[in-house]
Parts: sequence; C-alpha cells; structure tokens
Amino acid sequence: MVMGEPSREEYKIQSFDAETQQLLKTALKDPGAVDLEKVANVIVDHSLQDGVFSKEAGRMCYAIIQAESKQAGQSLFRRGLLNRLQLEYQAREQLRARSLQGWVCYVTFICNIFDYLRVGEAPAATWVADSLCPEDQEACSRLSALLWPFPQVNNMPMMALVNPVYDCLFRLAQPDSLSKEEEVDCLVLQLHRVGEQLEKMNGQRMDELFVLIRDGFLLPTGLSSLAQLLLLEIIEFRAAGWKTTPAAQNYYYSEVAD
Amino acid sequence: MVMGEPSREEYKIQSFDAETQQLLKTALKDPGAVDLEKVANVIVDHSLQDGVFSKEAGRMCYAIIQAESKQAGQSLFRRGLLNRLQLEYQAREQLRARSLQGWVCYVTFICNIFDYLRVGEAPAATWVADSLCPEDQEACSRLSALLWPFPQVNNMPMMALVNPVYDCLFRLAQPDSLSKEEEVDCLVLQLHRVGEQLEKMNGQRMDELFVLIRDGFLLPTGLSSLAQLLLLEIIEFRAAGWKTTPAAQNYYYSEVAD
Repeated sequence: MVMGEPSREEYKIQSFDAETQQLLKTALKDPGAVDLEKVANVIVDHSLQDGVFSKEAGRMCYAIIQAESKQAGQSLFRRGLLNRLQLEYQAREQLRARSLQGWVCYVTFICNIFDYLRVGEAPAATWVADSLCPEDQEACSRLSALLWPFPQVNNMPMMALVNPVYDCLFRLAQPDSLSKEEEVDCLVLQLHRVGEQLEKMNGQRMDELFVLIRDGFLLPTGLSSLAQLLLLEIIEFRAAGWKTTPAAQNYYYSEVAD
Repeated sequence: MVMGEPSREEYKIQSFDAETQQLLKTALKDPGAVDLEKVANVIVDHSLQDGVFSKEAGRMCYAIIQAESKQAGQSLFRRGLLNRLQLEYQAREQLRARSLQGWVCYVTFICNIFDYLRVGEAPAATWVADSLCPEDQEACSRLSALLWPFPQVNNMPMMALVNPVYDCLFRLAQPDSLSKEEEVDCLVLQLHRVGEQLEKMNGQRMDELFVLIRDGFLLPTGLSSLAQLLLLEIIEFRAAGWKTTPAAQNYYYSEVAD
C-alpha cells in the first residue's frame, strides 16, 4: 500500500492532540455522542492559535453542522460556534491588544465561517438582532424576496455575519493596522476570498472600506513597500470585478518580474 | 441679436494674434490659398506654448485636413504636421530639459492628434517606418485584415503614432518625471483620453507602462500625495476596463468627501 497524502479533512484534524482528534472524529460521525458546544469551543480555541487551521476551519465546521442536522435535525454546534464567535467579536479590541496573531487568526476564522456557512442548511442562528443594522434587515428581506422561488436561497451567505465580518475588515483598514504587515496581509487575503460575496450583501460598506484602503496611501507615516503592493493589488482586483487581470497577474505574482 | 458664446473652433482661433487668426481661417475655408506647411508649424508652435490650446488642437488640425482633402485631394498640411511632430519627438529630451511646460504641451498635443486623426481620412502619412516596431506592423496588418470588410477601417487610429505616443507616456512614467506633478498630471490625463485606444493597438506596451506606474509607488524618494492619488485613480480606471466605477467617482471626484 502506497503511503498517500492525508485527505484535507484528516490533515486538519491532525493538527490537534490525540484526544481532541478523537472528539472531532466522533463529532463528524456521531455528533449526538459528544458535547457539541465543547467541540465548537475546541475548534475556535485552536483557530485562534493556528493560522493555517483558521484558514480552513470553516470546512470542518460545515461538515459537523451537516452531520448534526442530518442525524438530529438540530444545530447545537452551529449555535455554540456562533455564540463563541460573537463573544470573541465583542472583545476583539482586547484580543488585538493582547495578541496580534490571535486577532489575525480570529478574522481569518470568521471570514472562513462566513465563506462556508450558508443560510438554510440548519435552523437560523441565534446571533442576529444585535449585529444586524436596519439596512441589512432590509437588504435581507429584499434578497430573500428575490431569491425565494429559487433553490439558491439555501446557498446565501449568513446575513448575521455580514456586519461582524465588515467590522473586522474595517478594523484592519485603520491606520494603526495598515502599518502592520500581518494585518494588511490578512485584510487582502480575506478580501480575495470573500470580498465579492460581501460586496453583494452590502455594497455601500465595501465602498467605505475601500475609501479607508485608498486613504492608506496618504498616511503621513507611510506604508511599507509590501503593504503598498498588497493594497494596490486588491484595489486593482476589485476594480476589475474581483478578478486578477493577466497584466496584474504578471506584475504581482510573477517570480521573475523584470 | 444675443451675444453668444464663441463656438469652440472660434474660441481656439482667438488665442492667436490677428494675422494668424486670418491665416487659420483661410486654411479652413480655402486651404489652397495658404502655405499649409507654415500653418502646421504655426499650430505646433502655439501648442507648445499654450497648454489649453494643445488639449484641443487636434480638432482644428482635423478640420484643416478635411478641408484640404475635399478641395484638392491632398495632404500637405497633414504631412507638414506629422513631419514637425516627428522633429519635436526626436528632440524630446532636449525639449524636456529646456522647458518642462513645453514638453507637457508636446505630449498633450501629440496625444490629441492621435485621438483626432484617423486612418483613411487622407493619404497615408510620411511618418512611418522609423517609428514603427515590427510588432506594430504585424498588429496593423492583423487589425486591417480584421477590419477590412467594414467601413470602420476609416476610423482606426494612425498606427504610425502609436509608438511615439507610447514613448512619450513611458517618459512621463520614469522616476524623475513621476516626482513632478505636472508630468504625472499629464500622464493620467492622456491615459484617460487615449489609454483605451492605445491598449487596443498595443496591449503589451500598455502592460509595460502600468508596470512603471505601479513601480512608482515603490520609489525610494516617494511620491507626493497628489501624484499617488492620480496614479491610484488611473490604475483603478484601467482595471475597471477604462471606466470610472461609481465608488471611484465618489472617492476621487467628490468635492465633499467625508
């Protein structure tokens, strides 16, 4: 038997200790047999410490949500996950002050959850009213009305996460964050990943976010060259309709640029 | 009779002295009665001194070319104009060293001529071989072949001007020019005006030009805030397909941005 690469799911589980790996495997196969709120906390804790895991944790969360919904028609895991995300969200300034790395992991994680979790896969989340502004509720009704006759309604991102995700990205676009390459890097990674979806959910906030990004070039303290390139690239990326043009590809991603 | 605004044509003629105004009026009405080479030189001389006139001189040149072609089926004016443009082009570094204002006017003028003059309006220009690179001739044949069955072939820009215009814009994108706001301003104005046409004629050179523009942000000397904004705007403008998006409109052109 040839030693194969571990599958993506397995690989991610392997970054946990043996006992937790067992807990996660059970959560995926027999969710009713474990404390799903504990599982949610384990995943969030790990995400806040492991930058690689936080980029792909949404996939595992999605699988557990599906498993629980199928087995019991419940959403304890999802509720636990969103509650914990909300707690961390409320304390995000403290988190950032305590650990820049943890803060960057948190933003990566919440964006990844936004990317993977979809409306209609399980009963609605508890995290709603206090993180939704009136515009969003209106947009939500409008979108729901538009999408109602179509099955794609089940594939809509969670409105409840739109503003928290935007708030995190706005934080990354403040002057003190733009002077830190880890945060700039995180900002543009998230925008590459979920920018287009976010803009569809609330175009005005995306416009406002890009005002901050453009203003970054005018900061009296100046940006590092890397930060300037990253921001320039995301500005072009969005202007081209959330696509990389061939010319931009050559400029920003060629290893042998002349 | 109400005093009206002078028409655009008249207004531009009024920036010349009385004697020259008469010469230009005759060139427009009875081109065979004047020395059209002299008229071409008068227009170029004036363009190099008058920034406002250089932005719109192409319109007057176009009118004289049409008049001469209709009256005599000749193109003495056009030949004189392009010869003079070529002389100035060859001496452009000296012009820039002598007078930055004159150099900016020259670039404005040649871009405006590129914008107004079209293939097929009059016999082909004399200014060809030495300013055409092999790629362009190939592109030209390719385009001509594509457009041949259609009347729009008469509306093609002059291939002979593509590389001289690019050369001027490349000069404006050198580090020493990017540090001068007049030249940055001229660069982005021309790209707004003829960038899309130029890219259609030679996309590779446009890619190369934008490499220089992006590199501008990384210059060790730094750019002024205004220069950064101007370049950022043109980068977005091109990435959006040579269009200003509503968000960019608000950011760059709103007088009351918050």
